[in-house]
Amino acid sequence: MNAPARTTRAFTQRRRPRGMPVPEDFAEVELPLVPPAAGQAVVENLWLSVDPYMRECMDGDWELHAPLEGRSIGRVVESCSAELPVGALVFHREGWRTRAVVNAAEVRVLPRYEGVAPQSFLGLLGGTGLTAYVALTRIARLRAGDTVYVSAAAGGVGTAAGRLARLLGAGRIVGSAGSAAKVRLLTEELGYDAAFDHRAGPGLSGQLERAAPEGIDVYVDNVGGAHLEAAIGAMREHGRIAWCGAVAQYNAGSAPAAPRNLFDLVEKSIRLEGFLVSRHGDAQVELEEFLVPHLRSGRVTDRLHVTEGFERTVDAFLGMLRGENTGKAVVRLGHDALEPSADPEPSCGHTS
Amino acid sequence: MNAPARTTRAFTQRRRPRGMPVPEDFAEVELPLVPPAAGQAVVENLWLSVDPYMRECMDGDWELHAPLEGRSIGRVVESCSAELPVGALVFHREGWRTRAVVNAAEVRVLPRYEGVAPQSFLGLLGGTGLTAYVALTRIARLRAGDTVYVSAAAGGVGTAAGRLARLLGAGRIVGSAGSAAKVRLLTEELGYDAAFDHRAGPGLSGQLERAAPEGIDVYVDNVGGAHLEAAIGAMREHGRIAWCGAVAQYNAGSAPAAPRNLFDLVEKSIRLEGFLVSRHGDAQVELEEFLVPHLRSGRVTDRLHVTEGFERTVDAFLGMLRGENTGKAVVRLGHDALEPSADPEPSCGHTS
Repeated sequence: MNAPARTTRAFTQRRRPRGMPVPEDFAEVELPLVPPAAGQAVVENLWLSVDPYMRECMDGDWELHAPLEGRSIGRVVESCSAELPVGALVFHREGWRTRAVVNAAEVRVLPRYEGVAPQSFLGLLGGTGLTAYVALTRIARLRAGDTVYVSAAAGGVGTAAGRLARLLGAGRIVGSAGSAAKVRLLTEELGYDAAFDHRAGPGLSGQLERAAPEGIDVYVDNVGGAHLEAAIGAMREHGRIAWCGAVAQYNAGSAPAAPRNLFDLVEKSIRLEGFLVSRHGDAQVELEEFLVPHLRSGRVTDRLHVTEGFERTVDAFLGMLRGENTGKAVVRLGHDALEPSADPEPSCGHTS
Repeated sequence: MNAPARTTRAFTQRRRPRGMPVPEDFAEVELPLVPPAAGQAVVENLWLSVDPYMRECMDGDWELHAPLEGRSIGRVVESCSAELPVGALVFHREGWRTRAVVNAAEVRVLPRYEGVAPQSFLGLLGGTGLTAYVALTRIARLRAGDTVYVSAAAGGVGTAAGRLARLLGAGRIVGSAGSAAKVRLLTEELGYDAAFDHRAGPGLSGQLERAAPEGIDVYVDNVGGAHLEAAIGAMREHGRIAWCGAVAQYNAGSAPAAPRNLFDLVEKSIRLEGFLVSRHGDAQVELEEFLVPHLRSGRVTDRLHVTEGFERTVDAFLGMLRGENTGKAVVRLGHDALEPSADPEPSCGHTS
């Protein structure tokens, strides 16, 4: 019987990027794994999440030369906590590494929902799903029959927003994306009523007007900049904008042009509301109650954009920033067949 | 016994202005007064309101060479409507003229609140008061203890916002205005805790930070542009901006620079919501129920900036656009002693 490996592979950030990050901004390192103390456990990561907000972390929140952080799903392989039994699947935030020592207080043992794959907790049941859910319900306060526009509609939040909007009773749902292939995907597989390629055609405003000739009531904004301006232009009176990010801005180095038509907010009684999903953790229970029955019945299926192999985590992240993903971008570490070591006998210390 | 005069003096617009309007954009004319039909009455105007939104009307909503429109308070002097008895004080929208023929369905017979002057229905109980009330309650959803910032704080909406914020339980209330005299007025007479002259000193952001060192929760925006940017910068998390106008923009001819820090709306979970008071007429009852007891008790008094004489209506309007008023800008027509003609015998026709 082998003791669990006492090292972890991890990605660190070597330097702050200017504009779009490059692979050389990162380093893959092997680090010793501190033995778990009381209340801790060793987790073998199975799935890692790469997300747009991480681009912002690279500018300052992330410490250089330290293992990066991110949402992750793993299995407990060694435990000094009764709350984290060996074999348990857990959600935690020590991503970008193969193994992590986690504190019981900071992880969630995942419920086993029949017919729901654990990795959905990085998808529709994860941060992106929660972002879309909070955007539609708490921020935009979607009403039955509303016309909804989603930018970056083929991305993680976008694919979730389209499907959730349908389940929540929206009327027409339109999306924009950056390629003809994505546009097809939106209407053929992801339930959008209309979609357009914002890189083709006669400009955003004209395309949005054709896709939603009677205007839009709700805009889920992942993008900012020109998309926000076009959406404000297309808004009907009392429209609502749930602003959850601005991918376009993160790499720009300077603030993007704000919408020139911002005063339309007054003229059309529009609400523009930003939010951080991290402030809405209490909506997670509601999301699961709402969505799990639909996932179980197959009415919706999760759409993950899977990159295989831990060593390709940076590729997955950079590809997501370039908009190459369709659906939520995740990395699978190839440990699906992983069996917990039987009868582990860790020497548990005390947490400080 | 003289029959009521069958003419009215009125202001018309001669041409569309470029930038700040000038007196020559207007003309004072004498027009015949069509005899009232059934359901109509002749009103002798006592008070006229001049408002920032009228600058926008000049660009298109107002027909050239026709009598202009605006909120007004007058007395019924001749009536073909049982709902509008001679002598009644009414609120109506046929301003910019000395007399008007009004339809009973389109005017409001003013309630007589003891201790409340009728002209308050152009002030705290009028459109500006309602704008401030809706901004604070429905849009910003003011909470007890909130720090409130008001730009153009010595203007019509601003003076109302400061006093209403206090009555509604705000914590610190800070305002900006365009002169040292106004700044003194704000703190000495209008209940502001701090105020600053945005035309003096080291720039808006620094001044706002000194006036509200712990940040602001609510911003009532009458101005847009640089004020909006400074307010976003000073906002605390979950701040709310009620945007009811942009005086600075109306004369600019082109859209003003939008805030460069707009993305802070996401980072700080800020809500920026525009509104038109005309969509919130149903809040009028609530406003009166809330405010009349305070007006009656003298806890607040209305602050009107009165220009005397109908012939000076254009001066009052242009002065208001230049920010010369402190409090709500109105025109008094000098008919206070007006007695209704006794036993009028109008020949009432039929409305088409």
